[in-house]
Amino acid sequence: MLNSIDIKNIFQNINLGEKVSINGWVRTFRSNRFINLNDGSCMEDLQCVIDFEKFDKKILSEINTGSSLNIIGEVVESQGRGQSVEIVVNEIRVLGLSNPDQYPIQPKKHSFEFLRENAHLRIRTKTISSVMRIRSELSYAIHKFFNENNFYYVHTPIITGSDAEGAGEMFKVSTLDLNNVPKNENEEIDFSKDFFGKETNLTVSGQLEAESYALGLGKVYTFGPTFRAENSNTSRHLAEFWMIEPEMAFYELEDNINLAEKFIKSIIQNIYKKCKKEIMFLSERLFKEEQNLPKNERNEMSLDKRINFVINNDFIRITYNEAFEILKNSTPNKKNKFKYPISEWGIDFQSEHERFLVEKHFKSPVVVYNYPSKIKAFYMRLNDDNKTVRAMDILFPGIGEIVGGSQREERLDVLKKRIAHLNIDEKELWWYLDLRKYGSVKHSGFGLGLERLILFITGMGNIRDVIPFPRTPKNAEF
Amino acid sequence: MLNSIDIKNIFQNINLGEKVSINGWVRTFRSNRFINLNDGSCMEDLQCVIDFEKFDKKILSEINTGSSLNIIGEVVESQGRGQSVEIVVNEIRVLGLSNPDQYPIQPKKHSFEFLRENAHLRIRTKTISSVMRIRSELSYAIHKFFNENNFYYVHTPIITGSDAEGAGEMFKVSTLDLNNVPKNENEEIDFSKDFFGKETNLTVSGQLEAESYALGLGKVYTFGPTFRAENSNTSRHLAEFWMIEPEMAFYELEDNINLAEKFIKSIIQNIYKKCKKEIMFLSERLFKEEQNLPKNERNEMSLDKRINFVINNDFIRITYNEAFEILKNSTPNKKNKFKYPISEWGIDFQSEHERFLVEKHFKSPVVVYNYPSKIKAFYMRLNDDNKTVRAMDILFPGIGEIVGGSQREERLDVLKKRIAHLNIDEKELWWYLDLRKYGSVKHSGFGLGLERLILFITGMGNIRDVIPFPRTPKNAEF
Repeated sequence: MLNSIDIKNIFQNINLGEKVSINGWVRTFRSNRFINLNDGSCMEDLQCVIDFEKFDKKILSEINTGSSLNIIGEVVESQGRGQSVEIVVNEIRVLGLSNPDQYPIQPKKHSFEFLRENAHLRIRTKTISSVMRIRSELSYAIHKFFNENNFYYVHTPIITGSDAEGAGEMFKVSTLDLNNVPKNENEEIDFSKDFFGKETNLTVSGQLEAESYALGLGKVYTFGPTFRAENSNTSRHLAEFWMIEPEMAFYELEDNINLAEKFIKSIIQNIYKKCKKEIMFLSERLFKEEQNLPKNERNEMSLDKRINFVINNDFIRITYNEAFEILKNSTPNKKNKFKYPISEWGIDFQSEHERFLVEKHFKSPVVVYNYPSKIKAFYMRLNDDNKTVRAMDILFPGIGEIVGGSQREERLDVLKKRIAHLNIDEKELWWYLDLRKYGSVKHSGFGLGLERLILFITGMGNIRDVIPFPRTPKNAEF
Repeated sequence: MLNSIDIKNIFQNINLGEKVSINGWVRTFRSNRFINLNDGSCMEDLQCVIDFEKFDKKILSEINTGSSLNIIGEVVESQGRGQSVEIVVNEIRVLGLSNPDQYPIQPKKHSFEFLRENAHLRIRTKTISSVMRIRSELSYAIHKFFNENNFYYVHTPIITGSDAEGAGEMFKVSTLDLNNVPKNENEEIDFSKDFFGKETNLTVSGQLEAESYALGLGKVYTFGPTFRAENSNTSRHLAEFWMIEPEMAFYELEDNINLAEKFIKSIIQNIYKKCKKEIMFLSERLFKEEQNLPKNERNEMSLDKRINFVINNDFIRITYNEAFEILKNSTPNKKNKFKYPISEWGIDFQSEHERFLVEKHFKSPVVVYNYPSKIKAFYMRLNDDNKTVRAMDILFPGIGEIVGGSQREERLDVLKKRIAHLNIDEKELWWYLDLRKYGSVKHSGFGLGLERLILFITGMGNIRDVIPFPRTPKNAEF
């Protein structure tokens, strides 16, 4: 029996005249003659040409969009445009039927809303499969970058007993019987009866644990799921998303920014090479979609060009103070066009401000650093001005914040003051403080949201379309 | 200013006579003269030799186990045994103190129990850091293997609304107020008020979702955290652990077993090359530990030899029927030495039976396949005998089951019967059944527990010591 091979192999190792066996799903079947077959191994369909007079009518009737076939035939030079080779079919075996009246994924344009309701089948579309191939290759590029730069991969815990991070609302994890929650004498929930003997949640960040590992292994990173129980029904928020968090001993803020910029450029460049076909397809898709928009809402640059811009240009670096002055003196601020006017030093920037800086003022990715301490987390290193901390955010066109990071406070006394000021119980952080007691060193790190980066690379408009099975308020289907 | 470099670089790119700056933590400080410094970049400490007469007494008093230093000095050929180069120290800067009376990680042997209580600091020990380096390199080897073999990496959801898998007890995920759980008119919990509008749990496996992606992308794999809320306080169980689940369209059971064997050998071989030093260190550690055991409880082969045995020998493949006959006719069964005697066909094998097959009878990894359908999951493909399913388990010496997999039932009618028989609600699995309605194809997959494989490679005795921050009953510290 002839062993079946991947369609990708047929495109890559052309042996004209060779007899091959392939499996796949029918994308289209035209004129009783041209079957476009896809097996997932690459973006392109393989055209399989049949002489319908040689085949049984029953078999022909079973070749519908979505049905699965085994085809044996000969590789020949393609007669049509756009493909190098095609198959002249000798034998067809129908593996699985697909009723054309019922199959949801028809060979036509579907709305992304409809596809989300069929998240188990949408991977069979060209757009979603291109996005998910990019997601896969991007994940690999991330591991490759860190491995080649001597970082160790650390699996920080998903279930956490700590709630001191304050990065957002958390999901509770429990095995208590919700019909009959056990209470103690004081009528408080008796968590000693819960699985872990205490209250536990899903992690919002692996940073604190990653710090403990950086102070032993030097350079580490996490890459795992994180969670926010926030009722944000937007195109940029997920309740469950994947985050990458590198953490480096002996790194100061500037080293941290340098690494983040090098990292982002390197992985995007890697993807641009590996997934060129997918990116060109998605770039064209976006271009067509934007034709329906008024001209001023279209992107100035095509997706392809935006990606190259990021790879080839230095990110702009400005302090919070500089950003504040630019925004304060900006035309939209003076003309009262911002929903949140810029007046008092110390306010947090809103999405509208970030977009102005990135998309209007600099037209480039922008790193803003040295933020006011009041609007940033307790673990960020205080500057000598006692007002700002060594935080940095990287802002991307069309996406907003894609990276948030900082140099961490390594001085035990300063950290303790900060914790006390915020009324966090020191006992909750005993082990985190230990890291400052025994051989404390300067260290830094950042977090990158995987889905936001995929949004940038794919030009997709909704974060729910760049993760296989999105989790959002009122939605945990599949 | 001299830029600091990683200690790993000093060992790899020796430039005798070069002046270097290094950072790290003191492992030991002997005779006021020899500082063993480690920065996490590699397993080996770098010996730094000081002339104590040239340094301030205060500085010398601050050089203790655990304190962090910046050292500037010259690379010279080592005078001592066991290392190629050392540093003649010119300058020392103490970065962070470590009180020798308080620092938990003293330069002596600590029990693993003690180290678990200090999981934030145990990464600074040679044993745990060796294990975690292997964990990191192994994870990378896994991604590399799949990427090079044209698999796509899929992030299946962690929070799941489905409870149809039956792989084990699940953790509930909720944002309901446990002090005041909302009820509906029928006094049932009103999950419509919960974050996702329904009951949700932490996933026990990404398999079902991975199947949906395999039927679009061809070959996929997951690599992520999975959860079991089982009250198993053993050295082989974790409530939170990492699993790798490849899923391949068009694969039958034999292809599946072939892939699993090739995969395991390939990644272990990769690790054996990349982490040779760590493995030799851990092999010696285990050898010493086993000297305290009676001779019949020691391993016949050293860790190093066991690893090579797996790389270089074919796994034994037997059916459940064959395994059953071997066990039934075995000496321990005849002499009533098994806790669970082997008599009736159809029973599930216990750990004692698996160990007999692997460690006594075959002295090799063993693949057992074609299990009775009654003891296996609903999604496994029924054989023509109507009694067995195309399941396979891979059993490893000292570990037991390390891989569980199967060919999946691709026939809609057979699958529906199986589901009905088990009283699972078809509606729960509507999307999973859809995969059999539209272009169904043969497909297969397996799951590999990352921590069990690390146990095998490192020779560690307790699964809590091969994951950074273990989650077990009554324990979610850090």
